[in-house]
Order: sequence, then structure tokens, then C-alpha cells
Amino acid sequence: MAKEKKFVEQITAMDVDFAKWYTDVVKKADLVDYSGVKGCMIIRPYGYAIWENVQKLLDAEFKKTGHENIYMPMFIPESLLNKEKAHIEGFAPEVAWVTHGGGEKLTERMCVRPTSEVLFCDHYKDIIKSYRDLPKLYNQWCSVVRWEKTTRPFLRTREFLWQEGHTMHATAEDAENETLRMLNIYADFYEKQLAIPVVKGKKTDKEKFAGAAATYTVEALMHDGKALQGGTSHNFGCEFAKAFGIQYLDKDNQLKPCYQTSWGVSTRMIGAIIMAHGDDSGLVLPAAIAPIQAVIVPIAQHKEGVLEKANELTERLSKVARVKLDDSDNSPGWKFAEYEMKGVPIRIEIGPKDIEENQCVLVRRDNREKVFVSLDNVEEALVEEFKKYTEALYNKALERRANMTYTETELDAFIETAKTKPGFIRAMWCGDLECELKMKELADVTSRCMPFGEDACGDKCICCGKPATKLLYWGKAY
Amino acid sequence: MAKEKKFVEQITAMDVDFAKWYTDVVKKADLVDYSGVKGCMIIRPYGYAIWENVQKLLDAEFKKTGHENIYMPMFIPESLLNKEKAHIEGFAPEVAWVTHGGGEKLTERMCVRPTSEVLFCDHYKDIIKSYRDLPKLYNQWCSVVRWEKTTRPFLRTREFLWQEGHTMHATAEDAENETLRMLNIYADFYEKQLAIPVVKGKKTDKEKFAGAAATYTVEALMHDGKALQGGTSHNFGCEFAKAFGIQYLDKDNQLKPCYQTSWGVSTRMIGAIIMAHGDDSGLVLPAAIAPIQAVIVPIAQHKEGVLEKANELTERLSKVARVKLDDSDNSPGWKFAEYEMKGVPIRIEIGPKDIEENQCVLVRRDNREKVFVSLDNVEEALVEEFKKYTEALYNKALERRANMTYTETELDAFIETAKTKPGFIRAMWCGDLECELKMKELADVTSRCMPFGEDACGDKCICCGKPATKLLYWGKAY
Repeated sequence: MAKEKKFVEQITAMDVDFAKWYTDVVKKADLVDYSGVKGCMIIRPYGYAIWENVQKLLDAEFKKTGHENIYMPMFIPESLLNKEKAHIEGFAPEVAWVTHGGGEKLTERMCVRPTSEVLFCDHYKDIIKSYRDLPKLYNQWCSVVRWEKTTRPFLRTREFLWQEGHTMHATAEDAENETLRMLNIYADFYEKQLAIPVVKGKKTDKEKFAGAAATYTVEALMHDGKALQGGTSHNFGCEFAKAFGIQYLDKDNQLKPCYQTSWGVSTRMIGAIIMAHGDDSGLVLPAAIAPIQAVIVPIAQHKEGVLEKANELTERLSKVARVKLDDSDNSPGWKFAEYEMKGVPIRIEIGPKDIEENQCVLVRRDNREKVFVSLDNVEEALVEEFKKYTEALYNKALERRANMTYTETELDAFIETAKTKPGFIRAMWCGDLECELKMKELADVTSRCMPFGEDACGDKCICCGKPATKLLYWGKAY
Repeated sequence: MAKEKKFVEQITAMDVDFAKWYTDVVKKADLVDYSGVKGCMIIRPYGYAIWENVQKLLDAEFKKTGHENIYMPMFIPESLLNKEKAHIEGFAPEVAWVTHGGGEKLTERMCVRPTSEVLFCDHYKDIIKSYRDLPKLYNQWCSVVRWEKTTRPFLRTREFLWQEGHTMHATAEDAENETLRMLNIYADFYEKQLAIPVVKGKKTDKEKFAGAAATYTVEALMHDGKALQGGTSHNFGCEFAKAFGIQYLDKDNQLKPCYQTSWGVSTRMIGAIIMAHGDDSGLVLPAAIAPIQAVIVPIAQHKEGVLEKANELTERLSKVARVKLDDSDNSPGWKFAEYEMKGVPIRIEIGPKDIEENQCVLVRRDNREKVFVSLDNVEEALVEEFKKYTEALYNKALERRANMTYTETELDAFIETAKTKPGFIRAMWCGDLECELKMKELADVTSRCMPFGEDACGDKCICCGKPATKLLYWGKAY
């Protein structure tokens, strides 16, 4: 394998061509491979291990907050998909249809799920009878299909992996609380585990999910100044519930409709990790989700005692981290480049001199800073270094976002900024769809969200000049 | 919820109607629900939690033996599926076809994967170049689709969840070793974790997997005497590799074909658990995969100190097991029946008298045996009880299998046994397909496997009377 391996210098530099840099990284870090199935990707072991780590951490958060996993069929009969009008209108153009099965034409065609609201509703209708049955807090890890024309690994593929939570509540307030609770779980996960700062906010009506009453989002800024929608949480009110006849007998003996939410994050998150932290040497992975958190590279490993000590160190550190020892024949220089490409957070070097001095060297992926640490308490030192590393990744991303976030109050200046400076633009909006569409036309931006807890930056709509109370983040999106 | 709950006496007794008993249990223990999607099931939280536990344990075994998880597209273009002749002939009649996507007719239709051999081969062709790249040990957890006419929850559904391992090796010997290694992992899992004894053996050519050179299987006997194929491991030789051009440059600088295996178990395993251990009160779950391993039921919980002590006990036991405290308003009797239905391995009762005597009562699900244990070392006592419980489940299943396994040397006696006694029948076979087919016709049985390590029970074919060296297990299968 090593022999065939291409060297890192073959990555396109970010500044030269960001899109090319991205595809180089996903391929050369062995995250994905293209498949013979148009628009679908193969998630390779190294990429899938990231997803497994994401799943493990998020699933624990979901379960801690009382959610249970279930599995729904992957097919949706056309008549079922048609039950909620706004929903079908949003999804019909991009579904894949199964028309034949077992050698026969189906009497009713079925789509491969693009999302499972209608399936959950159909089930909830059967199992919710009384206020005692509420809330129902279900989640599902699965793959979904949306027939995209142009695709890019992780960011937009015809099939992708995700989780979709679908919950039912007794009151509108409970549903709203759940919607925001899950949004906060996503935001915390992005900021604390993935070290990616996000803007939390509400989508405009134009950008909200098909059939939802309100959609909330976490929006992250990528290296190239484009926005990436990191996860969404939807409050459906009781429209779906009414369409599906989901109601419960309350304590007061009245039949009442249920209030519904759904929320999801997908493998697109891996795209966010790549584009938020990566550099010209390849991936830079947050420690929480890195398949290999630290790689041990023995120096002068042919010398007596080096491999023995490296093995001993591997065994000790395996108790506190996902550690790999690379004692292959490849040169240390090759290994350094290889694990930098793969974004391994910490490289640990240990050679004859280090052993003499009862130490090893920790080298951070983000800034290549070296720290000499005593072997006596190397476990604590490594854990401490992960912490510093994660903080540094977060602060760097936060600083970049600050440098790439602009506030505009005049239309001409907005357009100029949108044309010349990649990033978020904050500006006031009157709330009219017309203005939102016009900004797309004038400045080629879309609204990202109405952020929580930020002060207004004026009182006039950036587009029409009429009174405005809504602050919007605008940007070019993936 | 509790109010609506139907009581356990509504389960059909096993002896009255085993099939009805089975569907009663899967519904009333909240394992599955029927969906509006014909032939597909909804796996409810309690059922899915069993699958999650299966996944966790098996995945750890796969990783311990060097396997890595990946994710392949769920679609297979028709031309790719057609690449290996025997394979397509086996699967074509039962696939579902996607013919339209994104509002357009596809130029080539695609099936939803019934299994992924061809996708893995297509990928392996691209990534295997040298002997250094071998072995490749990949596994995938996913759902697959086979368009069955008649379906039953877990046993036969149009969509089901499974794992499929697909590996590539340098030599035929390596592939055979891998095939048997994985078969042994399955057998150990069935016997040690699920407490289900299995017969390990090789399938006849008629029963082997479409395109495989050899298929190995673990066969379990259900309560009603029917056989259930618990998992299979296939050695493909190099036929697929040749069809797909997967070859590697060996150390001697020669291009050589790769040798391939695949192996899988599915949610059908949950059907095996139900039918191997269940009884007329419902499920009986092996502790290793039970979502709730022990339920704590406070007795006279309104009395002072009872709930406090029950909470304390729950907290302590949660460190050694998956424990649930049921302090709902339902009566202890209702709770007993409820958790028996759900197959919870151990019920723990604690009431005022117990507290006075610093004890609690452990009641085993399989035989309802009560043990009084001191609160001082209740953790150890519970763990010990799980061990005894698992052993007892295994021994009971083993004894039942022994009582339902017959050896026959004369055709008439074989037919009589097949007609009157449910179970396995051991008999010699000459190896001719004709005899295998005739036994189906005469006795309505299929060959289950040629078992490993069992002595011959004669030297003549049970069917044609010609010399025979092959011992076969026959049975009626799910």
C-alpha cells in the first residue's frame, strides 16, 4: 500500500482552488471513493470511522434526553407521501421511485425515503391514544435519498447517512421547547466536540423545511467564506398531526391534536469538519471524532529498545485515547506527511535520545508545535494537549469567522461586499419574500438565518428601505 | 399508556398455534408494528434496542479481528448486478427496481441492494494493487431489500437490517480461514451471548449462496422443531474476482486473482431469540442483549422508605447492568406480567419486609425461581444470577434440541419421523442433487447442513441407498 501512496504535495493549495483542494483531501485522506453508482459515494473506513464517532457521541446525547431509536421502512407509498401538501411539494421533485419488485410492476409506486415524517406520523397515529402516551421521542439513524443533479462528497450526494428525530407532544409549547433543545444539542456538539462555531437562528419562511411551521438552524462558516447549514430542527405545529389524524385524549377528556418536531444532522457534517479546519497539508480533525487521536512514530526504530519503548507507550496511551503505533518500514518523514494528511490531532515521536531523557515529543497537527513531556505522566500530558488543541481549533475558526463577517446597512455596500468578500453579511430585513428573492438576484446570496440574541444593526430593510426589525445573516451556501 | 395495555393472558398459547403465539409476542412485547408499507415492518424502540445490543457486541468482535466498517451505495445499476452470472440468477427474481429519479426516467434502472457483493468487488478492483493491500477486511451495517411474497416480522420481510462482511485475500487458504473464522464468531455469539445452541456445517450445493464456491451456516432449532438459519459465511473462491478483474501483484512479481469471502447475520436473529427461548408468558431474553436486564419493582411503594431504598438500589445496580425502576402506579402484579411479557431476565422485588431484613428478592424470568440476596453484595449476586440464567437458557435449549434430533437410516422411518416429529433428522446422503430434491418431495424437508465433527450414521444414502459418506441435517426451515 505504502509504495503506491501518492505524496501530500499533490494536494491542490486551498488558495489556488478551494473546490479542488476539497476533493483532493476527501480522496487522498481515504475518506471516500467514487462509486459506479452515479451521484453516490463510498464512505471508506477512515471516513466511516469519523461518522461512527459522531454517532456515538450524538446518540448518547439523544438518549440522555430521553430519546429512543427505532427503524422505519425505507419506502414510502406515493399515497402516503401525498398526505401533507406542502411536504410533498417540497420533496416530490427530488425523489427516486421504485416501480417494480419481485419481477412485477407495483400497483402503487413507492419512493425511497427522502425523509420520514409521513412514516412516523402514520405510526404515531396508531400508538398515541392518551396524554399518558406523550411525549413520544423517537430517533432513527439511516440513509436517505434525494436525487440531486450535481453532487459533491459529503456535501451533496444522492444518498447520504443521517439521523432524523421525530417527536410528538401534547402542547405547542412542549414542541417548541423540544425543537430548541435539539438545536442546542447540535450547537453544543458543533462548538464543543467539533470545535466549529455556529450561528444559531431561525430560517425565513422561504428557507424553512417543506411543511414545517418553523425551522431553526446552526450555520457554520467554511474556510472559503461559504456558509454550511450544519443541522436543522423543525417545529411542525399540528398540521401533519391533523392531516394524519394524530390526536390524544387529554386529562380533561377532550380529544386534542399532537404537536410535532423533527430534527436532523447528516454526513454533511464531515464536509463541515474538512472545510472548517483543514489546511494545505490535508485534514485537521477535532480530537473528539478523530479515528486516530494520536499516532506514535518511533524515531530510529532499528536501534535497540526504541520499538520496545514505543510499544509500551502505545499500550499505556491506549487507555486514554485512540492511539496508533506506526512501526512500518516507511521513513519518519513519510509518516509525518501521511498522518498530517489524515488530520491526526497529535503525533508522538520517540527515539533513542528521548528514551535516554525519559521523554517523548508531542506535535500538534494544527500548528506543528512541539512539546517535550516526561514519560512519567504522559497520559495526563496527552489529554491536556487534546484540550489545548481543541480550544485552539475553535478559537482559530472563531477568529476567521469574525474576520469574515460583515455588517451592512446600505444596499450598494452590501452588493459590493457580497461580490468581493466571502463570508457572512449581517443586514436588516423587512420580512418580505420579495426582498429576499431580490437580494439573491442582486447579490447572489441567500438568507442563512435570523440569529438568536443579536442586536439589530439598523431599522431599515437592506433591500427596500422600509422599516425592518429582523436581523438576517446572508451568505453563499453549500 | 398503561391504561390501554392489554394483559398477557391474551397471548395465544404456543401449543395451540405457534405462528399465532409468535405474532402475538412480537406485537405485545412492543418489538414491531406493522407499517403502511406492504411487507415491511417498523422496528419499535424495544425491538431496536435488542438490535443495538447485538450490533455493539458483534461489531466489537469484528473489530477485534481486524475488520473495518464502510458504507456502500444502496443502489446497484443493472449492468453491475449482471456481472456475475450465478449471482444475478439467484437474486434477480426478488429485487426492487428504481426506474425514475428527480422527475426523470433513468437511463439505466437500478435495484435496491439485496446484498452488496458486486459493489464491494467494484470498489476492491480500484483499491487493490499489490500483496501489501491484502487482506482487505470490510464490513457494512445496513438495510437490504428482497421482494418476498409472504412475510413475517424479523423472519422474512421485504426490507431487513443486517451486516455484510466482504473480504479479499491473497490465497485460497486465507479466504477459507476467514470464512471459518467468521462462522465461529457467529457460532460463539449464538451459543455464549444468545444462549442458543447451533449446528455448524456446510451447505449443499443446492442450498449455497448464489455465486459462492462454498457456504457455511449455523443452524438453530426453534421451539416448534423448525430450523432457522442463524448466519452464513461464504467462500467465493476467485470467481467474482475474475469477473471484476480484481488482481494483485505478488512478491514474485506475478499478477494473481484475489480470493473472496462474505458473511452476514440479520435482524432475523431476533426471530431466533424469540422462538428459541420464549414461553406462554411472552419473551425470554438472554441477558447479553436484553434492553432491560433487570427491573426493580417496589412492593408496597407507598410505605415509608420503600421508594427511597428502591432508588438507591437502582443507582447501585445501574453500574453493573441495564436496570429499570418501575415506580409507576400500576400494581406489582401488573408489572410482573408486563416485564415477563417483555422477557426481562431478572425481576427484583423490594418491600418493607425486605428492607427490614436488608435484602431483596431476585426472580428469574425463565423459571420464576426466587433468591433472597443481601443488599450488602447485591451487585455480585445479580451478576452471578445473570450467569446462571444464561447457562440455564442454553442448557434448556440444548436439551430440547437433543430431544428433537433424530437419526434415521431407512427411508420409510425417515418419512415417518419427518411427518410426525418436528425437529432435525440426521441421515446419510450420497451427494446427488436428485436425492436432495426427492427428499423434499417425499418428506417435505430441506437439507440444513453437513455438520462439522460428527460421525457418520451409516454408509448408504437415505434416499437412493447407494454408498454415501456425507452426513446431513434435514429439517423444515423458516
